[in-house]
Amino acid sequence: MKKKVAVLLSGCGVFDGAEIYESVLTLLRLDERDAEYRCIAPDALQMHVVDHASGEEVEDSRESGSASRSILQEAARLARGDILELSQASPDDYDAVILPGGFGVAKNFSTFASEGAECEVRNDVRQFVQAFHKAGKPIGLMCIAPAITAKLVAPGILCTVGSDPGVEGALIAMGGLHKTCGVDEIIVDNTHKVVSTPAYMLASRITEARDGIFKLVDKVLDLS
Amino acid sequence: MKKKVAVLLSGCGVFDGAEIYESVLTLLRLDERDAEYRCIAPDALQMHVVDHASGEEVEDSRESGSASRSILQEAARLARGDILELSQASPDDYDAVILPGGFGVAKNFSTFASEGAECEVRNDVRQFVQAFHKAGKPIGLMCIAPAITAKLVAPGILCTVGSDPGVEGALIAMGGLHKTCGVDEIIVDNTHKVVSTPAYMLASRITEARDGIFKLVDKVLDLS
Repeated sequence: MKKKVAVLLSGCGVFDGAEIYESVLTLLRLDERDAEYRCIAPDALQMHVVDHASGEEVEDSRESGSASRSILQEAARLARGDILELSQASPDDYDAVILPGGFGVAKNFSTFASEGAECEVRNDVRQFVQAFHKAGKPIGLMCIAPAITAKLVAPGILCTVGSDPGVEGALIAMGGLHKTCGVDEIIVDNTHKVVSTPAYMLASRITEARDGIFKLVDKVLDLS
Repeated sequence: MKKKVAVLLSGCGVFDGAEIYESVLTLLRLDERDAEYRCIAPDALQMHVVDHASGEEVEDSRESGSASRSILQEAARLARGDILELSQASPDDYDAVILPGGFGVAKNFSTFASEGAECEVRNDVRQFVQAFHKAGKPIGLMCIAPAITAKLVAPGILCTVGSDPGVEGALIAMGGLHKTCGVDEIIVDNTHKVVSTPAYMLASRITEARDGIFKLVDKVLDLS
């Protein structure tokens, strides 16, 4: 039977949502491995919107501002419209869950971007991911997502954010364990079935991100 | 010396901009082949914005409406911020140009979505692409983009939109030549150096789109 993987998306765009290349490479590899996937996102407003051409925050785009955007609607772009609302998704339906990175993880799924180690993780996202952990199913985290592993999954899990001392410090302060890792490699915590890769924490080319992400997807499928 | 390819983006999202998977697969293959690329988009407003979760047009998102979006700013999401404004781009700097599909080509780069064979193509987009044609440099068109080849490039060029009779009819009415093509194949007009593939005119899986797009990129590089 085909393995079925939940891909949790935090928007669409590196500076305020899910990193696009990481998300597409994840879906590509899942399809190459003949796994089924379902893109899932919470029906909530993004923290804010960033003009990706200038890098500036769009005025009045904070939650409920006139220029605010929905995580679900933007994530749906990455799914060609085929998106499932997180509140309608059941972890029982999937063999594994993968979170691509992008600032959306640190802005929409958690408050890591503004509060660092003091951050909170969205309840619905945490409960969804922890259900996989409790069921002994594998979890894949890439880019900035592993930074919040201790609060998203559980403390004491080994993962990587590449080699960024600031983010690594926050990860450890929250109760996570860190190992430095090259862009084309993965870190596997076999006990907790958590797989991580630096992706665009380190990548300077899309092929570099591809190498680590493909290995992450392969390992997540192997563990499921 | 590395070949340098201009990738012309019409936004970010299949229903109102550039198709994301087609765009990312194009960049991935260019990088795999060790070609340089530059993402380029016009600084203009999209025709409108579509909520990709519901498929509905977002209210007041037509040009100059309060919910309108910029082609450049949205395309910048697909380029991780590294986007060049079309008015600042010189065709002389590139060996080839590729246009991913998505409704952005039919809504933002042209009026094909609303006017069919009677459509007009944006002047800046047409002039940019035609400069490649006049210089004997290859042009890659995927998905819906080949439909407007006669007005975008020149009449009498052989290309494909897969096997959609309605779009094929409009393509021919504008002066183009059409050949039916499988999702994993390309059509090459060697005289005019135009390469096309159906991509998401036919693809039901990302790996299907990958096969045709990788062949298109390879052929465009071979012709340059």
